[in-house]
Amino acid sequence: MTAGDPDLRSADPSLLRAFMRYERALMANDVSVLDALFADDTGTIRSDGGYTLVGHEQIAEFRAGRQPPPPRRLVRVHVRHLTPDAAVIVAESSRQDGGTGVQTQVWQRRDIPGPGTESAWVVTAAHVSTGPPRAAAAGAAPGVSPGTWRVPPGADAVVAQGAERGPLARARVAVKDLFAVAGHPIGAGNPAWLAAASIEREHADAVHRLLAAGADVAGIAHTDELAFSLAGTNIHYGAPDNPAAPGRVTGGSTSGPAAAVAAGAADIGLGTDTAGSIRVPASYCGLYGLRTTHDAVDRRGLVGLAPSFDTIGLLTREATLLAEAADILLPPAGTHDIDDLVVVPELQALAEPAVRVAVRAALRALALRAGSRLRTAHLDPDRLEAWFAAFRAVQQAEAWRLHGRFVEEHPGALDPAVEARFRQGGRIGAKEESAARVVLRAARNELLALLPAGTALAFPATSSPAPQRDRDPAEVEAVRAATLRLTCLASLTGAPALSLPTPRVGALPVGLCLVAAPGEDRSLLRLITKDG
Amino acid sequence: MTAGDPDLRSADPSLLRAFMRYERALMANDVSVLDALFADDTGTIRSDGGYTLVGHEQIAEFRAGRQPPPPRRLVRVHVRHLTPDAAVIVAESSRQDGGTGVQTQVWQRRDIPGPGTESAWVVTAAHVSTGPPRAAAAGAAPGVSPGTWRVPPGADAVVAQGAERGPLARARVAVKDLFAVAGHPIGAGNPAWLAAASIEREHADAVHRLLAAGADVAGIAHTDELAFSLAGTNIHYGAPDNPAAPGRVTGGSTSGPAAAVAAGAADIGLGTDTAGSIRVPASYCGLYGLRTTHDAVDRRGLVGLAPSFDTIGLLTREATLLAEAADILLPPAGTHDIDDLVVVPELQALAEPAVRVAVRAALRALALRAGSRLRTAHLDPDRLEAWFAAFRAVQQAEAWRLHGRFVEEHPGALDPAVEARFRQGGRIGAKEESAARVVLRAARNELLALLPAGTALAFPATSSPAPQRDRDPAEVEAVRAATLRLTCLASLTGAPALSLPTPRVGALPVGLCLVAAPGEDRSLLRLITKDG
Repeated sequence: MTAGDPDLRSADPSLLRAFMRYERALMANDVSVLDALFADDTGTIRSDGGYTLVGHEQIAEFRAGRQPPPPRRLVRVHVRHLTPDAAVIVAESSRQDGGTGVQTQVWQRRDIPGPGTESAWVVTAAHVSTGPPRAAAAGAAPGVSPGTWRVPPGADAVVAQGAERGPLARARVAVKDLFAVAGHPIGAGNPAWLAAASIEREHADAVHRLLAAGADVAGIAHTDELAFSLAGTNIHYGAPDNPAAPGRVTGGSTSGPAAAVAAGAADIGLGTDTAGSIRVPASYCGLYGLRTTHDAVDRRGLVGLAPSFDTIGLLTREATLLAEAADILLPPAGTHDIDDLVVVPELQALAEPAVRVAVRAALRALALRAGSRLRTAHLDPDRLEAWFAAFRAVQQAEAWRLHGRFVEEHPGALDPAVEARFRQGGRIGAKEESAARVVLRAARNELLALLPAGTALAFPATSSPAPQRDRDPAEVEAVRAATLRLTCLASLTGAPALSLPTPRVGALPVGLCLVAAPGEDRSLLRLITKDG
Repeated sequence: MTAGDPDLRSADPSLLRAFMRYERALMANDVSVLDALFADDTGTIRSDGGYTLVGHEQIAEFRAGRQPPPPRRLVRVHVRHLTPDAAVIVAESSRQDGGTGVQTQVWQRRDIPGPGTESAWVVTAAHVSTGPPRAAAAGAAPGVSPGTWRVPPGADAVVAQGAERGPLARARVAVKDLFAVAGHPIGAGNPAWLAAASIEREHADAVHRLLAAGADVAGIAHTDELAFSLAGTNIHYGAPDNPAAPGRVTGGSTSGPAAAVAAGAADIGLGTDTAGSIRVPASYCGLYGLRTTHDAVDRRGLVGLAPSFDTIGLLTREATLLAEAADILLPPAGTHDIDDLVVVPELQALAEPAVRVAVRAALRALALRAGSRLRTAHLDPDRLEAWFAAFRAVQQAEAWRLHGRFVEEHPGALDPAVEARFRQGGRIGAKEESAARVVLRAARNELLALLPAGTALAFPATSSPAPQRDRDPAEVEAVRAATLRLTCLASLTGAPALSLPTPRVGALPVGLCLVAAPGEDRSLLRLITKDG
């Protein structure tokens, strides 16, 4: 291992094959393969919380006598070569009961006894720990923080009951307060908007589909003002606390649904993503988040922000439910195996060092589970900057066209920071906007060229974990700026983006974002739900 | 690391210094030293049961925020070099609450930034686990197995009450049924002996001293028949189960006291050691055991076996109580620091491979804690065999002289295997015995030459962990033969021997035996009780 970030590609492929052979044998309780992958040596050592076994014989005896280990899924794999022939692999896993596991293995390449000069990787030292199941770890079910619901679950515990039967039967949906829910006005995160809103007569199309599939609308959850923020704060209604990182923001603008799902008060968050409003709260709250392909899901009944980029998105605690809910919303489509995961160092560089390391470990686990290759591609940082500027110009111009009149007619009604963003859009001339659209078309083509079928870009969903709620606004703005440079890529391409909650910076969640070509939503969902 | 036993001396001394610097800094919660000993790298990794921290910054932040770790004591340290500049150290420790800890560290020698070519050992990966406190681990207090007591604790819970005050106040002693306890006959592990025995009017000298120091005699505990066995079995009274290794024998001949102390039904076992009768049950039952220097402790009131080798010994669960009880029995004497721990490969070779590895790890921990050096010396295996034969001849001859008449007068009263050993002594002629004594004198001189003040021999207390109770007698005999070759060394030298319960073969205890020159009992006790 050299100082600095461990390079994803520095791991010996034969080491990784041996590691995955071990993992699969463990899940199959194939004792003879496990025995063969531990060094046949009196010094080989295996520890757990209880005690330490020394010598291949003792370890084999223990393994023969124990119950098969409970199913687990690799979530982060850290590979550190000490020399070309020695490495440490730290693998973090999650069990079905929500418990966690960590396994540190020292692997060495050893000559195989017998004629010839073959060598093989074997484990010479291992240390295994497990964390408690989720319920025990989380303690009592946490309360839902103020700032989560605009219309909380009522006495019936639901705001709108879904169909009796269906693939989402009894799943509880927290609907972002931008979607029409029949019988309720839309609040859009702003009291003046709410005051002027009339009662909706029909559900938004997405709400209707989820209800028809059996889900219930548990409540209507807060959004950052008019969805024009990634912070997860709202000066009128307060910022919900982050259940996954107490004392920190949830991120936004899908803040309320994220808080409700992360706290277990809802199972599905229905939200929107223009510039990252699903991916940022998914990243900060440790949730799965899907921004769907632009225009793939009907936006009827939705208060928009910038129609060229607006999409509908979902948040869940579990990958399978995300896929099930997305299946209801998305148009039918074939899928491709994502065989190539492409890492762009210039995008990695936009995140904090600890986030980069965490994302790499999660990506390593995903690639090993799915059997995907890790490749590297490059993007010129200057061009990235130009793309971001063009994206922002078009987004602001469209936002002003959509809501400028509301802003003008309600002086002082908006958070000054949000209002400033709208007004910035009012100052963008037609020529500037049109030039920006030219830049975006080129950017889109360049990104699409990186995304043939079977490929996904992989990079940090946000530049940092969730900022603290009381953090200096200037710092929050810096984080927002770096994050926007990452999130704008899927937005300007119209591409689907999936945020996986598997990286961790200490105890703090952060997202691994996967972006595929437009229409490949289901391929991304299959990648993360298939067993490796 | 090469295949085969890791060599004790192969660890880089600068690595061990860095390791101990870390351990001391941890106990002092000296965060800056701990931070400096972890590689200043974004890839440095630390795991525990809960989660994994990646990067020096995260780890330092965690350390700054946590409570100081609870005091712990290293009990086993396993060092495995991967290369001269990379090593894994697995350190097992015990906490004051009886809980256990295991820490796996990957150490690498790295260049220190700055001018010059200095390098230093730093931790690049660490994994820490803890086991529950002793009470929780052991569950309910275990019952005492049949075959433990000949005279169990009565309604008063004691058989003889000690002085009101004293250094051993209220410690409960299990007295081996070879010592006189006033008001009771001596049973000596044989019903015919017991039937013929008269009630003792006075306590044996050792019993009297312990009572005067405040200890109570909790009960009179079984012995292997006439102490002429190391098995821990008794065909008349049954073999007590081993509380530290259920389903296995306790070892003997101090079987009952070992079972009582290991089960927590007594605090001190008072026994005898002629050829290993303290050290073997200490090893099998995970107890501290002291065989005192020959003739250092008065044997009045004791049924002997072979007076040239008979000694009084003690068993405890804790090192400090062993030292306190021994202080009552032993004559006053100055002590020497044991600076040198001498390993004899030919003695190591008499133990099973797993025992050798376990003893080395325990010895490493002891040497690091005490700051002692590890040295190697050699003994010719053929000479060891000759010494053992001479020891056995003299022991058997003396045993026959002492008890031959009882054996002759009570045909069929003894276990045939025990009787055969006695009768073997009857066949040893005066010439043979005298020749054997010549061999023993030479052996004694050779061993004393290895044991100048400040030195102890360190080797496995027994060749294996406790055999299973239902094991084939032939196998038990093979284990006994190998163990006797180890235990006879202190016996024939008249030297004190201390068995430490720190090695472990999986969950099974096994002893690390330390032998010093005659009279150095207190030096050995100081070595194991001083904090490193």
